[in-house]
Amino acid sequence: MERIDTLEALLLHELKDIYHAEQQLVKTLPKVAKKAATPQLRQAIEQHLEETKEHVNRLEQAFEMLGQSAKAVKCKGMEGILDEGDEIMSEKGTPETLDAAIILAAQKVEHYEIASYGSMANWAGMMGRQDLKRLLGTTLEEEKTADQKLTQLAESHINRQSAEQARKAA
Amino acid sequence: MERIDTLEALLLHELKDIYHAEQQLVKTLPKVAKKAATPQLRQAIEQHLEETKEHVNRLEQAFEMLGQSAKAVKCKGMEGILDEGDEIMSEKGTPETLDAAIILAAQKVEHYEIASYGSMANWAGMMGRQDLKRLLGTTLEEEKTADQKLTQLAESHINRQSAEQARKAA
Repeated sequence: MERIDTLEALLLHELKDIYHAEQQLVKTLPKVAKKAATPQLRQAIEQHLEETKEHVNRLEQAFEMLGQSAKAVKCKGMEGILDEGDEIMSEKGTPETLDAAIILAAQKVEHYEIASYGSMANWAGMMGRQDLKRLLGTTLEEEKTADQKLTQLAESHINRQSAEQARKAA
Repeated sequence: MERIDTLEALLLHELKDIYHAEQQLVKTLPKVAKKAATPQLRQAIEQHLEETKEHVNRLEQAFEMLGQSAKAVKCKGMEGILDEGDEIMSEKGTPETLDAAIILAAQKVEHYEIASYGSMANWAGMMGRQDLKRLLGTTLEEEKTADQKLTQLAESHINRQSAEQARKAA
Protein backbone atom coordinates (compact mmCIF):
# COMPACT_ATOMS: atom_id res chain seq x y z
CA MET A 1 0.00 0.00 0.00
CA GLU A 2 1.38 3.39 -0.98
CA ARG A 3 1.30 6.34 1.42
CA ILE A 4 -0.14 9.65 0.27
CA ASP A 5 1.43 12.14 2.62
CA THR A 6 2.07 14.99 0.21
CA LEU A 7 0.33 16.65 -2.71
CA GLU A 8 3.21 15.45 -4.89
CA ALA A 9 2.46 11.83 -3.95
CA LEU A 10 -1.21 12.39 -4.73
CA LEU A 11 -0.37 14.05 -8.04
CA LEU A 12 1.88 11.13 -8.97
CA HIS A 13 -0.92 8.69 -8.07
CA GLU A 14 -3.34 10.54 -10.36
CA LEU A 15 -0.78 10.86 -13.17
CA LYS A 16 -0.48 7.05 -13.25
CA ASP A 17 -4.26 6.73 -13.38
CA ILE A 18 -4.80 9.21 -16.21
CA TYR A 19 -1.75 7.88 -18.10
CA HIS A 20 -3.52 4.52 -18.25
CA ALA A 21 -6.78 6.24 -19.21
CA GLU A 22 -5.21 8.17 -22.10
CA GLN A 23 -3.49 5.03 -23.38
CA GLN A 24 -6.83 3.21 -23.37
CA LEU A 25 -8.34 6.07 -25.35
CA VAL A 26 -5.62 5.92 -28.01
CA LYS A 27 -6.64 2.28 -28.55
CA THR A 28 -10.39 2.90 -28.38
CA LEU A 29 -10.98 6.11 -30.35
CA PRO A 30 -10.22 4.65 -33.81
CA LYS A 31 -12.99 2.05 -33.26
CA VAL A 32 -15.39 4.76 -32.11
CA ALA A 33 -14.61 6.95 -35.13
CA LYS A 34 -15.47 4.03 -37.42
CA LYS A 35 -18.88 3.65 -35.75
CA ALA A 36 -19.82 7.32 -36.18
CA ALA A 37 -22.31 7.83 -39.03
CA THR A 38 -22.05 11.61 -39.34
CA PRO A 39 -18.85 12.80 -41.05
CA GLN A 40 -18.52 15.78 -38.67
CA LEU A 41 -18.63 13.48 -35.64
CA ARG A 42 -16.11 11.09 -37.22
CA GLN A 43 -13.77 14.00 -37.93
CA ALA A 44 -14.14 15.39 -34.41
CA ILE A 45 -13.19 12.01 -32.93
CA GLU A 46 -10.25 11.56 -35.30
CA GLN A 47 -8.98 15.02 -34.42
CA HIS A 48 -9.31 14.26 -30.73
CA LEU A 49 -7.37 11.01 -31.25
CA GLU A 50 -4.41 13.07 -32.46
CA GLU A 51 -4.74 15.35 -29.43
CA THR A 52 -4.95 12.31 -27.14
CA LYS A 53 -1.63 10.98 -28.49
CA GLU A 54 -0.13 14.36 -27.58
CA HIS A 55 -1.70 14.13 -24.10
CA VAL A 56 0.16 10.83 -23.58
CA ASN A 57 3.41 12.60 -24.53
CA ARG A 58 2.67 15.47 -22.15
CA LEU A 59 2.04 13.03 -19.30
CA GLU A 60 5.44 11.46 -19.95
CA GLN A 61 6.93 14.95 -19.71
CA ALA A 62 5.05 15.49 -16.44
CA PHE A 63 6.52 12.30 -14.92
CA GLU A 64 9.97 13.46 -16.04
CA MET A 65 9.45 16.90 -14.48
CA LEU A 66 8.80 15.13 -11.18
CA GLY A 67 11.92 12.99 -11.61
CA GLN A 68 9.88 9.81 -12.03
CA SER A 69 9.60 7.24 -14.77
CA ALA A 70 6.23 7.07 -16.53
CA LYS A 71 4.03 4.31 -15.13
CA ALA A 72 0.40 3.42 -15.76
CA VAL A 73 -1.91 2.05 -13.08
CA LYS A 74 -5.26 0.62 -14.14
CA CYS A 75 -7.83 3.42 -14.23
CA LYS A 76 -11.09 1.82 -13.11
CA GLY A 77 -13.11 4.97 -13.72
CA MET A 78 -12.20 5.25 -17.39
CA GLU A 79 -12.47 1.47 -17.81
CA GLY A 80 -16.07 1.61 -16.58
CA ILE A 81 -16.92 4.55 -18.83
CA LEU A 82 -15.39 2.83 -21.88
CA ASP A 83 -17.16 -0.48 -21.11
CA GLU A 84 -20.43 1.39 -20.91
CA GLY A 85 -19.75 3.20 -24.19
CA ASP A 86 -18.83 -0.06 -25.87
CA GLU A 87 -22.10 -1.59 -24.68
CA ILE A 88 -24.34 1.13 -26.03
CA MET A 89 -22.48 1.25 -29.33
CA SER A 90 -23.17 -2.47 -29.77
CA GLU A 91 -26.95 -1.93 -29.60
CA LYS A 92 -29.03 -1.82 -32.74
CA GLY A 93 -30.47 1.55 -33.66
CA THR A 94 -30.67 4.26 -36.28
CA PRO A 95 -27.37 5.91 -37.31
CA GLU A 96 -28.58 9.23 -35.88
CA THR A 97 -29.56 7.84 -32.49
CA LEU A 98 -26.36 5.82 -32.23
CA ASP A 99 -24.39 8.98 -33.04
CA ALA A 100 -26.17 10.73 -30.16
CA ALA A 101 -25.14 7.77 -27.94
CA ILE A 102 -21.52 8.07 -29.12
CA ILE A 103 -21.53 11.78 -28.25
CA LEU A 104 -22.81 11.00 -24.75
CA ALA A 105 -20.12 8.33 -24.22
CA ALA A 106 -17.42 10.70 -25.50
CA GLN A 107 -18.62 13.50 -23.23
CA LYS A 108 -18.42 11.17 -20.23
CA VAL A 109 -14.79 10.52 -21.22
CA GLU A 110 -14.06 14.24 -21.58
CA HIS A 111 -15.67 15.08 -18.26
CA TYR A 112 -13.66 12.41 -16.46
CA GLU A 113 -10.51 13.97 -17.87
CA ILE A 114 -11.63 17.53 -17.07
CA ALA A 115 -12.05 16.52 -13.39
CA SER A 116 -8.66 14.81 -13.35
CA TYR A 117 -6.57 17.45 -15.16
CA GLY A 118 -8.39 20.26 -13.31
CA SER A 119 -7.38 18.85 -9.92
CA MET A 120 -3.85 17.99 -11.04
CA ALA A 121 -3.22 21.48 -12.49
CA ASN A 122 -4.55 23.00 -9.27
CA TRP A 123 -2.28 20.82 -7.11
CA ALA A 124 0.76 21.64 -9.28
CA GLY A 125 0.05 25.35 -8.75
CA MET A 126 -0.26 24.84 -4.97
CA MET A 127 3.08 23.01 -5.05
CA GLY A 128 4.65 26.07 -6.68
CA ARG A 129 5.27 24.10 -9.89
CA GLN A 130 4.03 26.60 -12.48
CA ASP A 131 5.79 24.65 -15.26
CA LEU A 132 3.80 21.53 -14.46
CA LYS A 133 0.61 23.54 -13.96
CA ARG A 134 0.99 25.03 -17.46
CA LEU A 135 1.62 21.62 -19.04
CA LEU A 136 -1.43 20.00 -17.38
CA GLY A 137 -3.50 23.14 -17.99
CA THR A 138 -2.86 22.93 -21.74
CA THR A 139 -4.37 19.45 -21.87
CA LEU A 140 -7.23 20.57 -19.61
CA GLU A 141 -8.16 23.31 -22.08
CA GLU A 142 -8.09 20.85 -25.00
CA GLU A 143 -10.41 18.47 -23.14
CA LYS A 144 -12.83 21.33 -22.42
CA THR A 145 -12.77 22.40 -26.07
CA ALA A 146 -13.39 18.82 -27.22
CA ASP A 147 -16.38 18.61 -24.85
CA GLN A 148 -17.82 21.90 -26.13
CA LYS A 149 -17.42 20.74 -29.73
CA LEU A 150 -19.37 17.57 -28.90
CA THR A 151 -22.15 19.63 -27.31
CA GLN A 152 -22.35 21.80 -30.43
CA LEU A 153 -22.48 18.73 -32.66
CA ALA A 154 -25.25 17.25 -30.52
CA GLU A 155 -27.28 20.44 -30.43
CA SER A 156 -26.90 21.58 -33.99
CA HIS A 157 -27.20 18.47 -36.00
CA ILE A 158 -27.39 14.98 -34.75
CA ASN A 159 -30.02 15.33 -32.06
CA ARG A 160 -32.26 17.31 -34.34
CA GLN A 161 -32.17 14.47 -36.86
CA SER A 162 -33.07 11.96 -34.19
CA ALA A 163 -35.97 14.05 -32.96
CA GLU A 164 -37.19 14.42 -36.52
CA GLN A 165 -37.18 10.68 -36.85
CA ALA A 166 -39.00 10.23 -33.54
CA ARG A 167 -41.73 12.60 -34.77
CA LYS A 168 -42.07 10.69 -38.01
CA ALA A 169 -42.35 7.39 -36.15
CA ALA A 170 -44.98 8.77 -33.74
CA MET B 1 -30.77 -6.69 -26.93
CA GLU B 2 -32.76 -3.48 -26.87
CA ARG B 3 -33.15 -1.34 -29.99
CA ILE B 4 -32.37 2.36 -29.83
CA ASP B 5 -34.31 3.78 -32.74
CA THR B 6 -35.52 7.01 -31.20
CA LEU B 7 -34.19 9.71 -28.90
CA GLU B 8 -36.86 8.64 -26.40
CA ALA B 9 -35.43 5.10 -26.32
CA LEU B 10 -31.94 6.52 -25.82
CA LEU B 11 -33.16 8.84 -23.07
CA LEU B 12 -34.87 5.94 -21.33
CA HIS B 13 -31.64 3.90 -21.58
CA GLU B 14 -29.67 6.70 -19.95
CA LEU B 15 -32.33 7.32 -17.28
CA LYS B 16 -31.93 3.69 -16.15
CA ASP B 17 -28.14 4.12 -16.03
CA ILE B 18 -28.15 7.34 -14.00
CA TYR B 19 -30.95 6.05 -11.74
CA HIS B 20 -28.60 3.24 -10.70
CA ALA B 21 -25.73 5.72 -10.35
CA GLU B 22 -27.69 8.06 -8.07
CA GLN B 23 -28.86 5.13 -5.93
CA GLN B 24 -25.24 4.01 -5.51
CA LEU B 25 -24.34 7.54 -4.44
CA VAL B 26 -27.05 7.64 -1.78
CA LYS B 27 -25.40 4.53 -0.29
CA THR B 28 -21.80 5.75 -0.71
CA LEU B 29 -21.86 9.44 0.27
CA PRO B 30 -22.44 8.88 4.03
CA LYS B 31 -19.24 6.77 4.15
CA VAL B 32 -17.33 9.44 2.21
CA ALA B 33 -18.58 12.22 4.55
CA LYS B 34 -17.26 10.25 7.53
CA LYS B 35 -13.80 10.03 5.95
CA ALA B 36 -13.53 13.79 5.34
CA ALA B 37 -11.26 15.50 7.86
CA THR B 38 -12.21 19.13 7.12
CA PRO B 39 -15.63 20.12 8.52
CA GLN B 40 -16.44 22.24 5.42
CA LEU B 41 -15.82 19.24 3.14
CA ARG B 42 -17.91 16.97 5.37
CA GLN B 43 -20.77 19.49 5.32
CA ALA B 44 -20.55 19.89 1.54
CA ILE B 45 -20.83 16.11 1.08
CA GLU B 46 -23.70 15.81 3.55
CA GLN B 47 -25.56 18.60 1.80
CA HIS B 48 -25.00 16.92 -1.56
CA LEU B 49 -26.34 13.65 -0.13
CA GLU B 50 -29.66 15.39 0.55
CA GLU B 51 -29.67 16.76 -3.01
CA THR B 52 -28.85 13.31 -4.37
CA LYS B 53 -31.91 11.82 -2.63
CA GLU B 54 -33.97 14.48 -4.39
CA HIS B 55 -32.28 13.59 -7.71
CA VAL B 56 -33.51 10.01 -7.25
CA ASN B 57 -37.05 11.35 -6.73
CA ARG B 58 -36.78 13.51 -9.84
CA LEU B 59 -35.64 10.55 -11.91
CA GLU B 60 -38.72 8.63 -10.76
CA GLN B 61 -40.82 11.59 -11.92
CA ALA B 62 -38.98 11.52 -15.27
CA PHE B 63 -39.81 7.83 -15.80
CA GLU B 64 -43.42 8.63 -14.95
CA MET B 65 -43.50 11.52 -17.41
CA LEU B 66 -42.45 9.04 -20.11
CA GLY B 67 -45.16 6.59 -19.03
CA GLN B 68 -42.59 4.08 -17.81
CA SER B 69 -41.91 2.47 -14.47
CA ALA B 70 -38.61 3.40 -12.83
CA LYS B 71 -35.90 0.82 -13.45
CA ALA B 72 -32.18 0.80 -12.70
CA VAL B 73 -29.59 -0.82 -14.94
CA LYS B 74 -26.07 -1.26 -13.62
CA CYS B 75 -24.05 1.87 -14.38
CA LYS B 76 -20.53 0.65 -15.09
CA GLY B 77 -19.13 4.16 -15.43
CA MET B 78 -20.19 5.27 -11.95
CA GLU B 79 -19.24 1.88 -10.52
CA GLY B 80 -15.68 2.32 -11.82
CA ILE B 81 -15.45 5.87 -10.51
CA LEU B 82 -16.71 4.81 -7.06
CA ASP B 83 -14.35 1.80 -6.92
CA GLU B 84 -11.47 4.09 -7.74
CA GLY B 85 -12.56 6.59 -5.07
CA ASP B 86 -12.91 3.81 -2.52
CA GLU B 87 -9.39 2.62 -3.32
CA ILE B 88 -7.71 5.98 -2.84
CA MET B 89 -9.66 6.66 0.35
CA SER B 90 -8.30 3.39 1.78
CA GLU B 91 -4.70 4.55 1.36
CA LYS B 92 -2.73 5.89 4.30
CA GLY B 93 -1.94 9.60 4.22
CA THR B 94 -2.33 12.90 5.98
CA PRO B 95 -5.89 14.15 6.60
CA GLU B 96 -5.27 17.12 4.28
CA THR B 97 -3.98 15.04 1.39
CA LEU B 98 -6.75 12.49 1.76
CA ASP B 99 -9.28 15.34 1.73
CA ALA B 100 -7.77 16.50 -1.58
CA ALA B 101 -8.19 12.92 -2.86
CA ILE B 102 -11.83 12.87 -1.71
CA ILE B 103 -12.48 16.13 -3.58
CA LEU B 104 -10.98 14.65 -6.77
CA ALA B 105 -13.13 11.52 -6.47
CA ALA B 106 -16.24 13.61 -5.81
CA GLN B 107 -15.52 15.84 -8.81
CA LYS B 108 -15.22 12.77 -11.04
CA VAL B 109 -18.68 11.77 -9.82
CA GLU B 110 -20.11 15.25 -10.48
CA HIS B 111 -18.58 15.42 -13.95
CA TYR B 112 -20.03 12.03 -14.89
CA GLU B 113 -23.44 13.32 -13.88
CA ILE B 114 -22.97 16.67 -15.65
CA ALA B 115 -22.28 14.78 -18.91
CA SER B 116 -25.30 12.53 -18.40
CA TYR B 117 -27.88 15.14 -17.34
CA GLY B 118 -26.55 17.61 -19.93
CA SER B 119 -27.21 15.16 -22.77
CA MET B 120 -30.55 14.02 -21.38
CA ALA B 121 -31.84 17.59 -20.93
CA ASN B 122 -30.72 18.38 -24.48
CA TRP B 123 -32.50 15.31 -25.87
CA ALA B 124 -35.68 16.13 -23.94
CA GLY B 125 -35.66 19.60 -25.51
CA MET B 126 -35.16 18.14 -28.99
CA MET B 127 -38.11 15.83 -28.34
CA GLY B 128 -40.25 18.88 -27.56
CA ARG B 129 -40.60 17.79 -23.92
CA GLN B 130 -39.90 21.11 -22.17
CA ASP B 131 -41.34 19.71 -18.90
CA LEU B 132 -38.79 16.91 -18.86
CA LYS B 133 -36.01 19.24 -19.97
CA ARG B 134 -36.75 21.56 -17.02
CA LEU B 135 -36.78 18.66 -14.54
CA LEU B 136 -33.46 17.23 -15.76
CA GLY B 137 -32.00 20.73 -16.12
CA THR B 138 -32.69 21.47 -12.43
CA THR B 139 -30.59 18.49 -11.38
CA LEU B 140 -27.91 19.44 -13.94
CA GLU B 141 -27.57 22.89 -12.34
CA GLU B 142 -27.27 21.36 -8.87
CA GLU B 143 -24.50 19.01 -10.05
CA LYS B 144 -22.63 21.95 -11.59
CA THR B 145 -22.98 23.97 -8.37
CA ALA B 146 -21.74 21.00 -6.30
CA ASP B 147 -18.71 20.70 -8.60
CA GLN B 148 -17.92 24.42 -8.31
CA LYS B 149 -18.19 24.25 -4.52
CA LEU B 150 -15.68 21.38 -4.49
CA THR B 151 -13.28 23.38 -6.66
CA GLN B 152 -13.57 26.34 -4.28
CA LEU B 153 -12.92 24.08 -1.28
CA ALA B 154 -9.87 22.60 -3.00
CA GLU B 155 -8.47 25.95 -4.02
CA SER B 156 -9.13 27.95 -0.91
CA HIS B 157 -8.32 25.63 1.88
CA ILE B 158 -7.45 22.03 1.65
CA ASN B 159 -4.89 22.09 -1.11
CA ARG B 160 -3.09 25.01 0.47
CA GLN B 161 -2.71 23.02 3.67
CA SER B 162 -1.33 20.05 1.78
CA ALA B 163 1.17 22.23 -0.08
CA GLU B 164 2.22 23.81 3.20
CA GLN B 165 2.91 20.38 4.56
CA ALA B 166 4.84 19.36 1.45
CA ARG B 167 7.04 22.45 1.86
CA LYS B 168 7.67 21.63 5.52
CA ALA B 169 8.60 18.05 4.63
CA ALA B 170 10.97 19.20 1.83
